[in-house]
Amino acid sequence: MANGISLEELQLAARNHGMPLEALRFDVTPIGLHYLLTHYDIPVVDPSSWRLEVDGEVARPLALTLGELRARPARELAVTMECAGNGRVHVEPHVVSQPWLLEAVGTARWRGTPLAALLEEAGMGDDAAEVLFTGLDRGVEGEEEQSYARSVPLAEALRADVLLAYEVNGVPLPPQHGFPLRLLVPGWYGMTSVKWLSRITVLTSPFDGYQQRHSYRLRQEEDEMGTPLSRIQVRALMAPPGIPEFLTRARVVQAGPVELEGRAWSGEAEVAGVGVSIDGGVSWAEAELGPAALGRWAWRRWSFAWDARPGAYEVCCRARDEHGNVQALEPSWNLGGYANNAVQRVPVTVTA
Amino acid sequence: MANGISLEELQLAARNHGMPLEALRFDVTPIGLHYLLTHYDIPVVDPSSWRLEVDGEVARPLALTLGELRARPARELAVTMECAGNGRVHVEPHVVSQPWLLEAVGTARWRGTPLAALLEEAGMGDDAAEVLFTGLDRGVEGEEEQSYARSVPLAEALRADVLLAYEVNGVPLPPQHGFPLRLLVPGWYGMTSVKWLSRITVLTSPFDGYQQRHSYRLRQEEDEMGTPLSRIQVRALMAPPGIPEFLTRARVVQAGPVELEGRAWSGEAEVAGVGVSIDGGVSWAEAELGPAALGRWAWRRWSFAWDARPGAYEVCCRARDEHGNVQALEPSWNLGGYANNAVQRVPVTVTA
Repeated sequence: MANGISLEELQLAARNHGMPLEALRFDVTPIGLHYLLTHYDIPVVDPSSWRLEVDGEVARPLALTLGELRARPARELAVTMECAGNGRVHVEPHVVSQPWLLEAVGTARWRGTPLAALLEEAGMGDDAAEVLFTGLDRGVEGEEEQSYARSVPLAEALRADVLLAYEVNGVPLPPQHGFPLRLLVPGWYGMTSVKWLSRITVLTSPFDGYQQRHSYRLRQEEDEMGTPLSRIQVRALMAPPGIPEFLTRARVVQAGPVELEGRAWSGEAEVAGVGVSIDGGVSWAEAELGPAALGRWAWRRWSFAWDARPGAYEVCCRARDEHGNVQALEPSWNLGGYANNAVQRVPVTVTA
Repeated sequence: MANGISLEELQLAARNHGMPLEALRFDVTPIGLHYLLTHYDIPVVDPSSWRLEVDGEVARPLALTLGELRARPARELAVTMECAGNGRVHVEPHVVSQPWLLEAVGTARWRGTPLAALLEEAGMGDDAAEVLFTGLDRGVEGEEEQSYARSVPLAEALRADVLLAYEVNGVPLPPQHGFPLRLLVPGWYGMTSVKWLSRITVLTSPFDGYQQRHSYRLRQEEDEMGTPLSRIQVRALMAPPGIPEFLTRARVVQAGPVELEGRAWSGEAEVAGVGVSIDGGVSWAEAELGPAALGRWAWRRWSFAWDARPGAYEVCCRARDEHGNVQALEPSWNLGGYANNAVQRVPVTVTA
């Protein structure tokens, strides 16, 4: 970041949308404020000719219309989704890719039909090991022309809360969220929830396509296999207090009682608590953690009553989960700049 | 741009949303793909306590609820809105502000009540010269703490197509588009259409607030008055053909017949035509211009049948309007990097 962001990275930042952090004040993120990461182009899909194909290691391959999918048993889930690259700009040395600061997150109500029952109907074979999901979005990456495709291990794919979603926040999926159908794997980073879904393929051995083999792995060096990314790491974010300066986004707060607020989530386990610091992480106090009102897979609100006195502060928040995971104070580096859940730091000037 | 984009500019790019250019394929931009420029923070507004105040040079000041505004005569208009800073990154030397490439545009159907009748009801005085619109969004800019506020000359404010809009694309305004109410001045750059509207004030002399006096003026030097920005300059954009490379966005097209397509608009006058070049602007051919199907204030589709042979191309499009305005081939500089409507240039590799 010392030398700035390149034109190529800016092109990505201009088309992939972050959630402005003041939108942490909404329980459910309004459509248009949820983060968006589109690897290639958003396809224009004609729903009348679109079909979902189910094939591979199945006794009865299927080709389903949108109407047939909508007629199946339905479930609605509130889910916090986060990009595996959220926080990438804060790692050093700089990693060139979509330059996310901290805005690659959002929570929506997704409605769809459970995947497991569909796989059962298709007669999944005993040799099944993974389920592959292929989208209609097509492009070039790592010098390979490809449709975006990711697999999910069988045990995860069969979870009751894994959905084939056709609605978000009560309306049909808009194009940018995967119209007419997307996968939804709650608790996993967003790359798993394949959009513009066209094909589900039951595999007997691990998928080794580009997005599985090369992208979305925690690695220190190009030639190591590394660890695949899966569950969302624990994180709290705050809605920056006070008002911003337009260009710098520096925050100005008027002295007096201030309610700091934000959201916390973890794909690994329930959120256990959130700490707040006003001195850059030297000392911490416990925030009030709201109820899991939206269910296991959505963020929880937190708040903290701050008696703000004039001066300069660095306000931070740090979540921990029931598995003992806690956010680091400083970012750690990996080749892809993934899963950097180091604490958010917001410089604030309190004026009399 | 030689030294890249700073962290401060990236912060703006991450929170202000561009319309990915493949969305030029939609007649009306889906919610969530329309461009967004938010000077400060998106406010959270409680519609039950919100009121629109109408004051200043009026005989009968008003305070209207959202219900009262919705009960008034309504009109729906399709409008192409563009940020005055669209194209800023392409001007040299580099101008530091929201770093727009070409994505700061969108077309939506806005529904609301005409402003003129409301001003008449309030009993606007004969001395009225301008109408000032103040939003609920608050921040610091040019070292002045301010609510976002812009004025419109009386003759423009009284146009029959100037609306106080409460719906977009058939739904209540989402927070990011100005809930519960925004101004809509068709044909003018987006800064005019004040969001989160709280107050309309009839003025007898020109408004000299920060956004009028300092921002949004065409100037070559800090100490000149310059010219205020108003109408959207003529522009055509194309949906980049073929498929993209993830990081560089470089386009790859398969040889054969390709339909180039895009949209063209002008706030000054009707679009008269669109030229297409595949050799970087050396030679031009005329595109087919679609009908003004969405009315005077929305973009028109254009298309061009290209028989793509293997090789490297720079594909360009250039619109002109009925007032004789035509896009320049190269950007020209001004202090704010405003109104740069130079032609779009898309490098394309055609493969056999």
